[in-house]
Amino acid sequence: MKFNNKNISVSPKAKIGNNVKIGDNTVIYDNVIIGNNSIIANDCIIGEPLNDYYFKEDYQNPETIIGEGALIRSHTILYADSVFGINFSTGHRVTVREKSIFGDNCRLGTVTDIQGYVTFGDNCWLHSNVHIGQQSKIGHFVFIYPYVVLTNDPTPPSDTCIGATIGDFSQIAVGAVLLPKTKIGKHSLVGAQSLVGGSYDDYSLIAGNPGKFIKDIRELKSKETGESHYPWPYNFERGMPWEKIGFEKWKNNNGFEND
Amino acid sequence: MKFNNKNISVSPKAKIGNNVKIGDNTVIYDNVIIGNNSIIANDCIIGEPLNDYYFKEDYQNPETIIGEGALIRSHTILYADSVFGINFSTGHRVTVREKSIFGDNCRLGTVTDIQGYVTFGDNCWLHSNVHIGQQSKIGHFVFIYPYVVLTNDPTPPSDTCIGATIGDFSQIAVGAVLLPKTKIGKHSLVGAQSLVGGSYDDYSLIAGNPGKFIKDIRELKSKETGESHYPWPYNFERGMPWEKIGFEKWKNNNGFEND
Amino acid sequence: MKFNNKNISVSPKAKIGNNVKIGDNTVIYDNVIIGNNSIIANDCIIGEPLNDYYFKEDYQNPETIIGEGALIRSHTILYADSVFGINFSTGHRVTVREKSIFGDNCRLGTVTDIQGYVTFGDNCWLHSNVHIGQQSKIGHFVFIYPYVVLTNDPTPPSDTCIGATIGDFSQIAVGAVLLPKTKIGKHSLVGAQSLVGGSYDDYSLIAGNPGKFIKDIRELKSKETGESHYPWPYNFERGMPWEKIGFEKWKNNNGFEND
Repeated sequence: MKFNNKNISVSPKAKIGNNVKIGDNTVIYDNVIIGNNSIIANDCIIGEPLNDYYFKEDYQNPETIIGEGALIRSHTILYADSVFGINFSTGHRVTVREKSIFGDNCRLGTVTDIQGYVTFGDNCWLHSNVHIGQQSKIGHFVFIYPYVVLTNDPTPPSDTCIGATIGDFSQIAVGAVLLPKTKIGKHSLVGAQSLVGGSYDDYSLIAGNPGKFIKDIRELKSKETGESHYPWPYNFERGMPWEKIGFEKWKNNNGFEND
Repeated sequence: MKFNNKNISVSPKAKIGNNVKIGDNTVIYDNVIIGNNSIIANDCIIGEPLNDYYFKEDYQNPETIIGEGALIRSHTILYADSVFGINFSTGHRVTVREKSIFGDNCRLGTVTDIQGYVTFGDNCWLHSNVHIGQQSKIGHFVFIYPYVVLTNDPTPPSDTCIGATIGDFSQIAVGAVLLPKTKIGKHSLVGAQSLVGGSYDDYSLIAGNPGKFIKDIRELKSKETGESHYPWPYNFERGMPWEKIGFEKWKNNNGFEND
Repeated sequence: MKFNNKNISVSPKAKIGNNVKIGDNTVIYDNVIIGNNSIIANDCIIGEPLNDYYFKEDYQNPETIIGEGALIRSHTILYADSVFGINFSTGHRVTVREKSIFGDNCRLGTVTDIQGYVTFGDNCWLHSNVHIGQQSKIGHFVFIYPYVVLTNDPTPPSDTCIGATIGDFSQIAVGAVLLPKTKIGKHSLVGAQSLVGGSYDDYSLIAGNPGKFIKDIRELKSKETGESHYPWPYNFERGMPWEKIGFEKWKNNNGFEND
């Protein structure tokens, strides 16, 4: 239904892999490289030219590299000069600006806005309407929920730009704001609507406005089971590489021995 | 201006009512049914195919049913397998995913994101940029303001999905977050920026982070008049079915005797 | 790359200045006036017709005036009956409704939503995903950060609409909500995630939920330098008209002697 070869523009300078589907009205600009078996749905813009394009006659579009198996949903805009690992997927109307580096198996929800100059590890899942400021550094297996904002200017407006850092396996719940320079360790959980600054150890539950360390997430016991859901990788496997293997076994063969 | 029959695609398997206008660049997929006297503006996607479409050769698009008198503004995406009552309207860039059931006279503001598997009663008005998680259940005459989020996973990430419930005539103010399993009664008011969990009786004012019961909304007296604006249906009628009749008289003929 | 004269619609009743570039798939409706040297990127809608258009046969589109040097990025929707000063720029997917008045050099970030019936002075910078309710009044050199909401209905739902007012040079940080009728003076700073009502003097730092006056912003000293960054115009000049001149010298020739 979406792939009728209607009103599509693909630059002759783009390199499109094998078995790639391109949706109606989609535009692919110069120097985009799309891996095999990818789907770019309708009305997308891939390799959006940078600001200089509007003002410099000799503008050359930098490379945009999309790994194999991508699924980019409609109306998404990916700027040039970014790199997306394999199996990258988006909801609708996602915006990713230049110099964004994504590992493998990352997912971005509808309307999520990545401001560029950021790095993500593998298997990061961002839900709808997340805002990631420049200079953010995000580890592996990080989940970020709707309306979370990562900021970077400690005294707005200024020319200082220091993003937040989030360790592997951490979870940032709905509506939380991370202030500039915040460091969240590994296996941590930031509560919904928190306003968080400062640095926190691994396994922290951080919550409130202003946000504070509440307890070790391993002490967050369920009323029903008396056990902690955290660290979550031992209790959640849908879509994870340890699905049907178990985290315990998987981690030892994949560089996460200490998690 | 918007209806020039330009770059429109309508599936031969769609059923379009009488006196329906379809805007330029709009796409209507298989098995969409649009009621009489509806307006679908430009650049919309109606009956967006579900995820299986990308991966299953024998995919059949489920029915999407839009009642009479709809007004869908530009760039809106309505997934297949949803039902919209009469006089449904949207702002721009709304997204509604599958298995969303709307009663009559519902309105969704610009960029609002309905995650699917939800039910709404009649006359619900959602303002711009509202996010409704799966398994939410919303009554009649519920108003939800910008940047409100209804969540559903108590221990993210997990496979548990328990949405929030909102009773008839309740109001959820700007930026509030309802935690999973929250139950808001009828005629209640959730304050701006609140973080709310738990269950609350009818006529509750709930506010704060963390959110708490503050008082009965009938005790929320205006400094000018000394009277309470709530329950609001007695004091607001623009666009309501009791306009020019009064809520008192209307409710007794319409199943809301006890409100 | 974006200007191939492909699928563009420009009303014969629009007046397009000299050296204006119009992107593919963009639509410019009746009575739009675009100043010289402007760029309207792809997939934009300029002069979006008002609600009456759908229902009145004799609808006439009001004028939309865009000053010289505009840069409107893709998928932006500007309603008719608004005025934009020179050098107006937007990110992607911005929505501006009718009766919005902008001074010169204003910038609106991606997905920002201006509800109409608002006024902005010169040099206002709104970041991504800001929501400005009707009847808001915003001074000169005001910066508003992502997910800020300006509201206007003190007892929702009602027919009362009293917007917030923000004085010159003030900063509203990420995720703050201004309640109806809030008055922020000049040179003030509203903290991230604050919920703010009431009236505040110039030079106020206001923060928290509920928001309170914390201190004079001139007392907000940096740990490193021992000096205050505020009032910021003395310490930030990128893109400002006092760049390379200094605020001290500039202000005396430009009507800001007392700032």
